Amino acid sequence: MTHRVINFYAGPAGLPLPPLERAQKELLDFENTGMSVMEISHRAKEYDAVHNEAISLVKELLNIPNNYKVLLLQGGGNLQFAMLPMNILHSGRTADYIVTGSWAKKAYKEAKIVNSDAPRVAASTESETFSRLPRQEELQLNPNASYVHFTSNNTIYGTQYQKFPDTGKVPLACDMSSDMMWRPFDVSKFAFIYAGAQKNLGPSGIVVAIIRDDLLEQCRDDLPTMLRYKIHAEKNSLFNTPPCFSIYILRNVLVYNKSIGGLAAIESTNREKGQLLYGCIDKYSDFYRPIVKVKEDRSFMNVVFRLPNEELDAKFVSEGKKNGMMGLKGYRDLGGIRVSTYNAVTVDNVKTLVSFMDEFVKKNG
Amino acid sequence: MTHRVINFYAGPAGLPLPPLERAQKELLDFENTGMSVMEISHRAKEYDAVHNEAISLVKELLNIPNNYKVLLLQGGGNLQFAMLPMNILHSGRTADYIVTGSWAKKAYKEAKIVNSDAPRVAASTESETFSRLPRQEELQLNPNASYVHFTSNNTIYGTQYQKFPDTGKVPLACDMSSDMMWRPFDVSKFAFIYAGAQKNLGPSGIVVAIIRDDLLEQCRDDLPTMLRYKIHAEKNSLFNTPPCFSIYILRNVLVYNKSIGGLAAIESTNREKGQLLYGCIDKYSDFYRPIVKVKEDRSFMNVVFRLPNEELDAKFVSEGKKNGMMGLKGYRDLGGIRVSTYNAVTVDNVKTLVSFMDEFVKKNG
Repeated sequence: MTHRVINFYAGPAGLPLPPLERAQKELLDFENTGMSVMEISHRAKEYDAVHNEAISLVKELLNIPNNYKVLLLQGGGNLQFAMLPMNILHSGRTADYIVTGSWAKKAYKEAKIVNSDAPRVAASTESETFSRLPRQEELQLNPNASYVHFTSNNTIYGTQYQKFPDTGKVPLACDMSSDMMWRPFDVSKFAFIYAGAQKNLGPSGIVVAIIRDDLLEQCRDDLPTMLRYKIHAEKNSLFNTPPCFSIYILRNVLVYNKSIGGLAAIESTNREKGQLLYGCIDKYSDFYRPIVKVKEDRSFMNVVFRLPNEELDAKFVSEGKKNGMMGLKGYRDLGGIRVSTYNAVTVDNVKTLVSFMDEFVKKNG
Repeated sequence: MTHRVINFYAGPAGLPLPPLERAQKELLDFENTGMSVMEISHRAKEYDAVHNEAISLVKELLNIPNNYKVLLLQGGGNLQFAMLPMNILHSGRTADYIVTGSWAKKAYKEAKIVNSDAPRVAASTESETFSRLPRQEELQLNPNASYVHFTSNNTIYGTQYQKFPDTGKVPLACDMSSDMMWRPFDVSKFAFIYAGAQKNLGPSGIVVAIIRDDLLEQCRDDLPTMLRYKIHAEKNSLFNTPPCFSIYILRNVLVYNKSIGGLAAIESTNREKGQLLYGCIDKYSDFYRPIVKVKEDRSFMNVVFRLPNEELDAKFVSEGKKNGMMGLKGYRDLGGIRVSTYNAVTVDNVKTLVSFMDEFVKKNG
């Protein structure tokens, strides 16, 4: 029996076991090719089938309309912070950024590097340590902006948009790195979506992006080729050698997601996990002190709280570890506890944690 | 017994078996962590050890002087084609490109996109279908250039620099994607070296770059952060989430390279493979017609030739496949046969091919 722990890391994070078992089984001989999937030319039909299955499963699971392209890119969310304005933010135009956490702020900063005058902060909750999301009526949106950018889930601060911002006719761009595929959503509200895979989707080293055709048409043609969305769309994300193994694992995860009932089933599991965990926090709210100030902004992916003092935070992390639960330590700048409950975390995993939390408060509360 | 073929693909290419077997064994439980190496935070000590071991083994195997940094980057050679001029090719300066094949030409084109006036062609053998390398005396070098860029091995056309160009005091930049680590070489002759891993080093999705400190100091500070060499150097290639699994396989390959005697032993094997294969070609040179016109420019990594007609080329590829030898088809634009004999290809593999070639010429010659 393979030794496996309960993985609450914030990313790279746990993956469901069946996609990994499949990878292990065929690591030296992929589908009777006599080669690892790592060893096959990216122009060979065996790899092509994996690549296209990954793209078509993203479309199917997210129910993506036909006027969108799915791109598989490299460089993580960080490179997207720059590629989006490089491609879309044309001279003389502006873009609105909703700043709800460190990653949202980084996206804004990279856009400033690309075009120092163009990005505007449409709203920020930084003065409240990002402990809530801005409400719709707080957004100071420019109706002529090239796009509005926001972060759907703030991994560090534990907030998550349950209802997306309404930007009217202005294209909506979203960093969904830490919550893509946690539930079904209406892709047609967005012009551009991107997600580093290493939370809900697969291993690090691959970004899934979804771009609406009209936005694609507006992309600049004079950028270095690797930085052009249009090229990646035209070449089906095979302009250059893609990170084949990362895409293969992504494919395995997507096949698994479909097999367990798709995003409706995954949402239901995620809501059950959230109710268990927030139920425990609310029950002992003097001890497990939530960092997010507004309940409806709470994240189903990253649950953050503090214990009465730092010693107890550290004890919680180390006793959790002794009980086979890894990755409970909060983000280095924020401290406290962070429980990341991405798709691969099961209801049973959360039940184990909640039992531990019950015991811990009894002993230390 | 696992079914394995002989892999002559040009890249992604075959990897040595022991690094893959190690990966398979610990895919679900990496070093008793109870997690896959894909599932561990890139800030966790377990991943950090892998990351640092990969970097230090690159340094050790290539005997890299202390005034260089090793970087692990994303986006393949293609992104480096742009990042190099973006970082180094300052306004008003020029850069010299030696154009010896499709990839060298792409590097030049990307530099033109970055700064249309700056790149110059110092030499090109395109009019001879890249069938040889320019000699030192043919290079029209500008002594004030920011750098000279060349491609050490031309995967498509089967040429390889046995002796590197001499550029005097002008910094030498090299795309070594298809031959890094095929033999020891003097890194101190170079200012910048980069290699997509998917030939000799590991899986796709990771680039190994080596940059001299004085060049690093000259890099621009106003680029998007992910495109700045200086940031990746300062952050030990952990500015963002790296492609952890690709780096882990790279590490496994490097450990294996060291265990078999390092680059001196690897060079000796590669030379033996080359002698066997070119020996056969020279023996039947009316039948196996070399594409490279100058013997000393022949590549030890990609051996290209044509049979008397396209039907025989196709027959050779398909009969090779029936005999368990994959990836013999020449590059789409060039046709003919390409045998890629990267480090993971063994002497026995080449002997099997040479026996097949002996038989094939007897039946069809």
